[in-house]
Amino acid sequence: MTTVDVPAGSPFGPENLPYGVYSVGGGAPRVGVRLGDSAVDLAALLGDDVFAAPSLNPFLAQGAARWAAVRAAITERVAGKVPAAAVHPIGEVALHLPFEVADYVDFYASEHHASNLGRLFRPGSEPLMPNWKHLPVGYHGRSGTVVVSGTDIVRPSGQRKAPDADAPAFGPSVRLDIEAELGFVVGVGSPIGTSIPTSAFAEHVFGAFLVNDWSARDLQAWEYVPLGPNLGKSFATSVSPWIVPLAALEAARVPLPGQDPQPLPYLREQEPWGLDIDLVVEWNGEEVARPCYREMYWSPAQMLAHMTVNGASARTGDMFASGTISGPGKHERGAFIELTWGGKEPVTVKGEERTFLLDGDEVTISATAPGPDGTTIGFGEVTGRILPAR
Amino acid sequence: MTTVDVPAGSPFGPENLPYGVYSVGGGAPRVGVRLGDSAVDLAALLGDDVFAAPSLNPFLAQGAARWAAVRAAITERVAGKVPAAAVHPIGEVALHLPFEVADYVDFYASEHHASNLGRLFRPGSEPLMPNWKHLPVGYHGRSGTVVVSGTDIVRPSGQRKAPDADAPAFGPSVRLDIEAELGFVVGVGSPIGTSIPTSAFAEHVFGAFLVNDWSARDLQAWEYVPLGPNLGKSFATSVSPWIVPLAALEAARVPLPGQDPQPLPYLREQEPWGLDIDLVVEWNGEEVARPCYREMYWSPAQMLAHMTVNGASARTGDMFASGTISGPGKHERGAFIELTWGGKEPVTVKGEERTFLLDGDEVTISATAPGPDGTTIGFGEVTGRILPAR
Repeated sequence: MTTVDVPAGSPFGPENLPYGVYSVGGGAPRVGVRLGDSAVDLAALLGDDVFAAPSLNPFLAQGAARWAAVRAAITERVAGKVPAAAVHPIGEVALHLPFEVADYVDFYASEHHASNLGRLFRPGSEPLMPNWKHLPVGYHGRSGTVVVSGTDIVRPSGQRKAPDADAPAFGPSVRLDIEAELGFVVGVGSPIGTSIPTSAFAEHVFGAFLVNDWSARDLQAWEYVPLGPNLGKSFATSVSPWIVPLAALEAARVPLPGQDPQPLPYLREQEPWGLDIDLVVEWNGEEVARPCYREMYWSPAQMLAHMTVNGASARTGDMFASGTISGPGKHERGAFIELTWGGKEPVTVKGEERTFLLDGDEVTISATAPGPDGTTIGFGEVTGRILPAR
Repeated sequence: MTTVDVPAGSPFGPENLPYGVYSVGGGAPRVGVRLGDSAVDLAALLGDDVFAAPSLNPFLAQGAARWAAVRAAITERVAGKVPAAAVHPIGEVALHLPFEVADYVDFYASEHHASNLGRLFRPGSEPLMPNWKHLPVGYHGRSGTVVVSGTDIVRPSGQRKAPDADAPAFGPSVRLDIEAELGFVVGVGSPIGTSIPTSAFAEHVFGAFLVNDWSARDLQAWEYVPLGPNLGKSFATSVSPWIVPLAALEAARVPLPGQDPQPLPYLREQEPWGLDIDLVVEWNGEEVARPCYREMYWSPAQMLAHMTVNGASARTGDMFASGTISGPGKHERGAFIELTWGGKEPVTVKGEERTFLLDGDEVTISATAPGPDGTTIGFGEVTGRILPAR
């Protein structure tokens, strides 16, 4: 038996306990929680085979009462002696995609981001579309290309058309970008023909994580009318490996900054699901932005209510993401197309003027939120490096 | 032992052999082929447990050489005596969703449909967007709401805004429509970072089936800018239960009607994947349209090549659909919004003037293609009835 040490001030203290899937030395992937600088094997800790699985999905499907009971059991067990075989130094584990992604919907919930993109993609028009303040605009992304943090990203090729060209050309994207987002995973779904009210959010959604929605802006700009982004996004979406349960985010809940006009009744919230989360975006190790989630216009409870109000079913493993998190300040923008204003205002990265991603570049997004009693809840990071086009 | 009778002229003769998943008397779903008016249990016929599964996916993943070998084995076996327990009258089986849907991409490959929708959704602008003839425009749909033919469709609710209203209202869709489409299922996928050339289409795609992409036009019109359709489509997509293997469609392959300008090299075909398929759309039992697939601008091989040219992976169970099949003639339009020109030119159904779907309406789409030696290949049908909004 051993104890799990937690360094003072760790963002992975016992008030966090995020869930992930990891393996050790090429062994079978299994579910664990992160505590301090350790991964703790839950099948070994709790003797429950639902965690001896290569994804969180079986546990997610068990529902909110069970999530609470397991969290309480883990909290109690890790305060004392635990089996030494259940504890692995974080540096010795390989982290895997934490859940099987069912459907993936990406929203567009930052007013600052949507306004900036509107100005860049549709100059001369109103930056926000007439529907934007009435519903959380979103679209379905590609579930099969959601990858775990650390996965290399091959530069996508595709069609793009220069403004002065008669026809499109084919080749590697020359405007490869990031989008710093927050993602959510559905644990308990809902049958087709029904919907999930905002008040039932925490009964259905298990937790949150970081998302980098890699975006080829040149492909996107050419393809996206009238049916939305496709190839410009579908090549890869990276997620952080640790799912922070909603239960760890109670102290981070804040009211939304304000919605005007008041949304339709099905989108109103009885209790706030704004979240006080600070992100940091690093480009080759240099901080280039600090987006803050508390500026988001639409809450995740509103996103889920909207997504199902037409009777669409939800399933265990459904993932939805916030869209780029951008605040009002220039340093708060979560995409390079905004930070560099379409490439016209380069930023300085390690002493070089930069606009979009070059081969070999690495982007790391990390985040923290306030925890109970002055503690900090860490999301860890989502990172990825660009490989040359094939 | 028994023989499987095939009525003369049946579109389910031994040259077709479409695959589906069925159950009998509440028993476990399993894979079978349709022959004449019977479902033939493949696990019982061939003694192979890959067919004792509730979906086609395990068999699809085995690849094109195996698909050909199994088709040859079935053809040989059903020509003689087969175990009586392997044969079930089609009227006594329940048909299930034939495969687990991984990702679902819906294209927009009919020039007539895209032009008609452009005129209806964006009056006064060019009907086709500048990108339309350069790439097969498509977007991701919701995999979790793909349902098998015969599933009732609950009328979706959502936001829609009247042209003269200041703000949107919430309520049941009043412009509920169909889209008659052809769908394709990927058997063998491709790894992330690679792509599938048009020439490899038949090594990856197993077969084709009918799709009704139910569409709430009022929800869609309000929500779809700038990220594409979402709630207007995501409530349900119906598919026919029998997957016609590509091997059964050899005699139906025809050149595309013509592409001008010539597409970029990655979209060019060495051999044609146009398909000579005739559809019939029935509204409450009355024929209202006869769309023909051979009029489609983009081929399914081009769709798959485009979908993966950016390095997006493909997976077993990935589904993609053609988009509405509309020909040049009014009676060839595969969506009611086109047939009735946005509701302004009603069609007569059972003696009544009709525009969009009413509660209790039933729509059935069926199709046939030429088979070898003057035979006919049947796709069966995809049908669904509208239930009132909840």
